[in-house]
Amino acid sequence: MARETAASALVVDVGDGLFTIPVRTYFQDTDAGGVVYHARYLDFFERCRMEWLRHLGIECRTLASKDGVLFIVRSLEIEYAKPARLDDALVIGLRVEVVGGAQMVVRQQVARDDDILATGRVHLACVAAEGLRPARMPPHLRERISAWLPSATLPERP
Amino acid sequence: MARETAASALVVDVGDGLFTIPVRTYFQDTDAGGVVYHARYLDFFERCRMEWLRHLGIECRTLASKDGVLFIVRSLEIEYAKPARLDDALVIGLRVEVVGGAQMVVRQQVARDDDILATGRVHLACVAAEGLRPARMPPHLRERISAWLPSATLPERP
Amino acid sequence: MARETAASALVVDVGDGLFTIPVRTYFQDTDAGGVVYHARYLDFFERCRMEWLRHLGIECRTLASKDGVLFIVRSLEIEYAKPARLDDALVIGLRVEVVGGAQMVVRQQVARDDDILATGRVHLACVAAEGLRPARMPPHLRERISAWLPSATLPERP
Amino acid sequence: MARETAASALVVDVGDGLFTIPVRTYFQDTDAGGVVYHARYLDFFERCRMEWLRHLGIECRTLASKDGVLFIVRSLEIEYAKPARLDDALVIGLRVEVVGGAQMVVRQQVARDDDILATGRVHLACVAAEGLRPARMPPHLRERISAWLPSATLPERP
Repeated sequence: MARETAASALVVDVGDGLFTIPVRTYFQDTDAGGVVYHARYLDFFERCRMEWLRHLGIECRTLASKDGVLFIVRSLEIEYAKPARLDDALVIGLRVEVVGGAQMVVRQQVARDDDILATGRVHLACVAAEGLRPARMPPHLRERISAWLPSATLPERP
Repeated sequence: MARETAASALVVDVGDGLFTIPVRTYFQDTDAGGVVYHARYLDFFERCRMEWLRHLGIECRTLASKDGVLFIVRSLEIEYAKPARLDDALVIGLRVEVVGGAQMVVRQQVARDDDILATGRVHLACVAAEGLRPARMPPHLRERISAWLPSATLPERP
Repeated sequence: MARETAASALVVDVGDGLFTIPVRTYFQDTDAGGVVYHARYLDFFERCRMEWLRHLGIECRTLASKDGVLFIVRSLEIEYAKPARLDDALVIGLRVEVVGGAQMVVRQQVARDDDILATGRVHLACVAAEGLRPARMPPHLRERISAWLPSATLPERP
Repeated sequence: MARETAASALVVDVGDGLFTIPVRTYFQDTDAGGVVYHARYLDFFERCRMEWLRHLGIECRTLASKDGVLFIVRSLEIEYAKPARLDDALVIGLRVEVVGGAQMVVRQQVARDDDILATGRVHLACVAAEGLRPARMPPHLRERISAWLPSATLPERP
């Protein structure tokens, strides 16, 4: 029973090249300013990236142990438009922008209902799990990720 | 669409007086020992308590703004039996043990499949949102919480 | 005694317009990849900004209660060059780049010995503590901050 | 220069068998209740334990790579007496209570000036860095830790 419940939480909304997961905010996410602490958005982004990979059939744990690689953040930028607050039901989104041999760039966002609260872009590098040197993505990984490129399916996603 | 997706994540498994929520572990939850960092379990516990309150129709945000109270942790104890790891599908549980006029005690646990990874007990105090002095729980709050006491006979919790 | 000890931790190294604080890394800062988790750098940046303000005689708590304003992050970018690891003695730095009526931009960095591990730029907005709408910086605040602009000629910063 | 600055931050106050480190609170440590988030105290405790080990000449990184062991938290309890707030200068303390062949128990506390804000007890197990099975402490480690036992130096610390 518990297992089904856990599985059912991994509900995602995939439409129009946008992969999303729901995230609820708790006291742990907020700060004394009464809003969600700004660094916490990066945590939300990471949850979304990992659920997206899982949606593609890729577990980071397995990626490290079987393929010997993992993704690390090379750089990121984020813009905060409106604050998220305690008890908010957020939707964290991801779109693939660029896929290279050993890296990719994704655009991410935090939304609440029809409001976009924050947008970001994250540059990820594929590295060897041991030593963290740049490593080419295993073909099965690159293939599945590339299917999410806007050019792959859609002529004009901005 | 996004709203429904968010709502569907708040799936819980209520049976036998145990309220549970699913939690997935990400890099943000782990440490260099390769396991989930021990303090993070308290975050998981808090998520479960807040979802349980929401399940009872209580939002902490509203509790503070309308009733002028909030819960703070007075004390807690936790025992770690087995480590949680990256990519684990955990189930966080809660049972009510004691309910008083201005406090309550809940038992909490972290499970993975049939393994109980950690168990804890959290003593919460109801306090005024301004000043944090002890405050009696509003009757509507105490009533809903008390219904979860093991001694309470509950023929039809959904 | 305790008070002196606490005070002595607020040792900073101010030279060449670069304000720095030391930060040690613990298990809580690392992830299962064996390195410091990427979002944690934003926490280090925030610690540095708050110690810099304190160095200028400004406490955020007082700023909110007396002047009714606080700073929020409007946007930020960060580039990760080399990973920080467990037990690292890091030095977090800050330089002021732009100061406006209701905002400022600072450059920040994470260093270990002579290595720059990460560099970032943080755009901060001054907002009303209630409601978070843009607010002009109190003159005493803007003055002290502006003294750190590179164009400002400062014969004797203490 | 940066190195000296970093080193000078590791100032500790050792007296009467109590090892302490200073910790400042930032927005990242607080929550929307306006106080330091309860789980964050465990982070403060961990910082104190690691600085205490470092004070004994032990780095966790080296302990794992050379001796092949690390400490994990087996259980803990914490009592919160008064809330810590933004910008507080806290002093985190540690006393050794029990040292066994593969475990130890420490008492920890959070103080602000003459107020004890929280007290806790943490039971730590020494485990193999690979596999996390219980492992005997290396003699050099146990010896240095045991020197901090109250019986070692002081007849009646409570």
